[in-house]
Amino acid sequence: MSRTLASAIIAKKTTQKALEGEICKVNVDLAFANDITGAPAIRAFRKMGAKQVFNPQRCAILPDHFTPNKDIAAAEQAKEAKEFALEQGMLYWEQGRVGVEHTFLPEQGLILPGEIVIGADSHTCTGGAMGAFATGVGSTDLAAIWALGQTWLKVPKTIRVLFQGKRPAWISGKDLILEVLRNLGVQGALYKALEFSGEAVESLPMDDRFTISNMAIEVGGKTGLFVPDEKTLKYAEKRASRPFEPVYPDKDAPYERTIEIDTSSLEPLVALPHLPSNVKPASQCEGIKVDQVFIGSCTNGRLRDMEQAALVLKGRKVHPSTRCIIIPASQEVFQACLERGYISTFIEAGAAVCTPTCGPCLGGHMGILAAGERCVSTSNRNFVGRMGHPKSEVILSGPLVAAASAVTGKVTDPREVLSQEELKALEVGSYE
Amino acid sequence: MSRTLASAIIAKKTTQKALEGEICKVNVDLAFANDITGAPAIRAFRKMGAKQVFNPQRCAILPDHFTPNKDIAAAEQAKEAKEFALEQGMLYWEQGRVGVEHTFLPEQGLILPGEIVIGADSHTCTGGAMGAFATGVGSTDLAAIWALGQTWLKVPKTIRVLFQGKRPAWISGKDLILEVLRNLGVQGALYKALEFSGEAVESLPMDDRFTISNMAIEVGGKTGLFVPDEKTLKYAEKRASRPFEPVYPDKDAPYERTIEIDTSSLEPLVALPHLPSNVKPASQCEGIKVDQVFIGSCTNGRLRDMEQAALVLKGRKVHPSTRCIIIPASQEVFQACLERGYISTFIEAGAAVCTPTCGPCLGGHMGILAAGERCVSTSNRNFVGRMGHPKSEVILSGPLVAAASAVTGKVTDPREVLSQEELKALEVGSYE
Repeated sequence: MSRTLASAIIAKKTTQKALEGEICKVNVDLAFANDITGAPAIRAFRKMGAKQVFNPQRCAILPDHFTPNKDIAAAEQAKEAKEFALEQGMLYWEQGRVGVEHTFLPEQGLILPGEIVIGADSHTCTGGAMGAFATGVGSTDLAAIWALGQTWLKVPKTIRVLFQGKRPAWISGKDLILEVLRNLGVQGALYKALEFSGEAVESLPMDDRFTISNMAIEVGGKTGLFVPDEKTLKYAEKRASRPFEPVYPDKDAPYERTIEIDTSSLEPLVALPHLPSNVKPASQCEGIKVDQVFIGSCTNGRLRDMEQAALVLKGRKVHPSTRCIIIPASQEVFQACLERGYISTFIEAGAAVCTPTCGPCLGGHMGILAAGERCVSTSNRNFVGRMGHPKSEVILSGPLVAAASAVTGKVTDPREVLSQEELKALEVGSYE
Repeated sequence: MSRTLASAIIAKKTTQKALEGEICKVNVDLAFANDITGAPAIRAFRKMGAKQVFNPQRCAILPDHFTPNKDIAAAEQAKEAKEFALEQGMLYWEQGRVGVEHTFLPEQGLILPGEIVIGADSHTCTGGAMGAFATGVGSTDLAAIWALGQTWLKVPKTIRVLFQGKRPAWISGKDLILEVLRNLGVQGALYKALEFSGEAVESLPMDDRFTISNMAIEVGGKTGLFVPDEKTLKYAEKRASRPFEPVYPDKDAPYERTIEIDTSSLEPLVALPHLPSNVKPASQCEGIKVDQVFIGSCTNGRLRDMEQAALVLKGRKVHPSTRCIIIPASQEVFQACLERGYISTFIEAGAAVCTPTCGPCLGGHMGILAAGERCVSTSNRNFVGRMGHPKSEVILSGPLVAAASAVTGKVTDPREVLSQEELKALEVGSYE
């Protein structure tokens, strides 16, 4: 039988037939929690009577959400997670040596093509950019995986998304996934897999692919996978922490449907409050005042994103009454930014640069909004109160729109701010 | 009549005689609040029926404590402060462009020799390093100064502290003030001024002097002043935002008492829980386990402090189970650290580096302790629960002890960690 990428991976990891709709018991390659979901998972693990995780090298805890500890409750949670990780000999990285989980784990070669990766965090689907079946679960399900090394997955139907045409340099992965959201809405892929391919994918840096897979959950998807190509394998081979075997879809795979997106005609996009699918061209939203800009998160905190932010902020200043908070999503990204002079550019422009943390994205800390304040954010959700007060607003965008909006203090199409030379530089890029 | 430095400054700013013990109405050169003390000051200002601050260029609000906004309450406070500052045309700097107030204000040339500076923050005494009478008040008193430009000060008695002898290179301003605390205790200078001078002061960088003045309040002092010298004037002239006139004590000034500290015989010191005066040599505390190290704050977040931390952390790693959080106290310090490669050194060592904030020092955010955790901190207070849970502990030290303790995971005299070459480098220093 012919298979989509999602069903092919499940088939490889189960002894069942893995027909669409079948609930399969699968072996899990990596199961992780963070400082928020860790503590409830640990308690569920104990309650099950489990004593030892199935394989300490396949179980991880990453303190990335409310860290560096934002308050006593956060400190207590982080401490409980750390103590459990040390007791079990699990993968664990102390605060200061870790990054935002969905950025850090692929960097460490812990999410690899053909794998099944389960995290107690909804944006675990980010790992789909590696050609892995990566998806989020609740803490109790995660505890069971820690104990058993297995879980149940229903084989999802797959929607194929073809990115076609020649993508303009100012169109990033964020614009592509916002366009998918505009097409499919926030429930368009409920319990389905998204499978991304098409001629425009080839030129798409890994960082942009992570951005796209990251927001598969916003379309309602169980996961969002990229078919591995040369870039995927190069990225994986350089970093792999263990052997891996990429999996591919069959040529005649039975997609539920295929949507095609002509990337050549796209404009820089934003998602207005309060849904990620409320997507408009940035140029149609100019003039909307912005109190804060946040560039970072598991969606857009990678080097490619920082490069774009730096291109806009170099030689410019953040608007006097706008806050701009920039958070590289891992220490590897932070160091690369240091080497390229981006951190100095950000600070010179008037931005606050912070150690990797999920922080503001989920209203955790490091940039919370007051009533009536509005933030342009490169993160993934703009639900009511997501970044603070229920009367605050979040507008989602890619790093170019965010940085341009920081400069002008209102929603701005980056082409309004960048010179011809800078747009050219964007086209060339320095980044694969 | 002959005067101490404190009484000479008050005499210059009042029409009264300014006898010791006399309550004088004085003109204030700068009156500032932060994001925590700002909101109550603003409400008091309104309640007084005041409409306009006495001089917008002499009134300031700095959002530095719970910023970047750590939660909704912090965001609301910061917003209220910002709106008031913009309404009044006061000195205000947006988050990302400001630093910890007691570091940032002297950098901006807003605290100058011979001035009276009042802040709604107890560590306003830091400005004493400039030869200014700088002291903290509550928010209501500050509101009255914003309205009137004047306040009442009782002319304090003065304790003279003479730092004598040749200071070893590994003895910093923090060790000197901890030695003062060991001598005088936390109430030793209640409503008195401390006046620092002596032959060891000459070689003392401004940054170390700020550290010493900063902790005058921990000795109970109203303020802690350095007699201006060439270094003070050079620092002030380079940065002054307005004309200033240094003031000096008379040669036969009537000090209540004089204490002499032989700096040549000092060892690196720590203050054990739960009082800043509970001072011991670090070498006598070795083996005390450390869960977190914090290097930063208005006490020790300046370039000199970062230089010392970098010297220890260069080529070394933070202990695997210890968190290390490093926060330059201003964007100027952050940029200087970038230029010197310190930020890269810190991250390479495994530290979390954050944008300027008071954060962890006062248990605000960015490094809060769980029950049973212990932190070596370069900040100024180690009272019960100061940095988090009431069952956590804080040990105060200078940056060398803190960085050495980060490496070993326990309280450590830096001479145990540094090589002969590094101790030599410390002696030479790169810093004035």
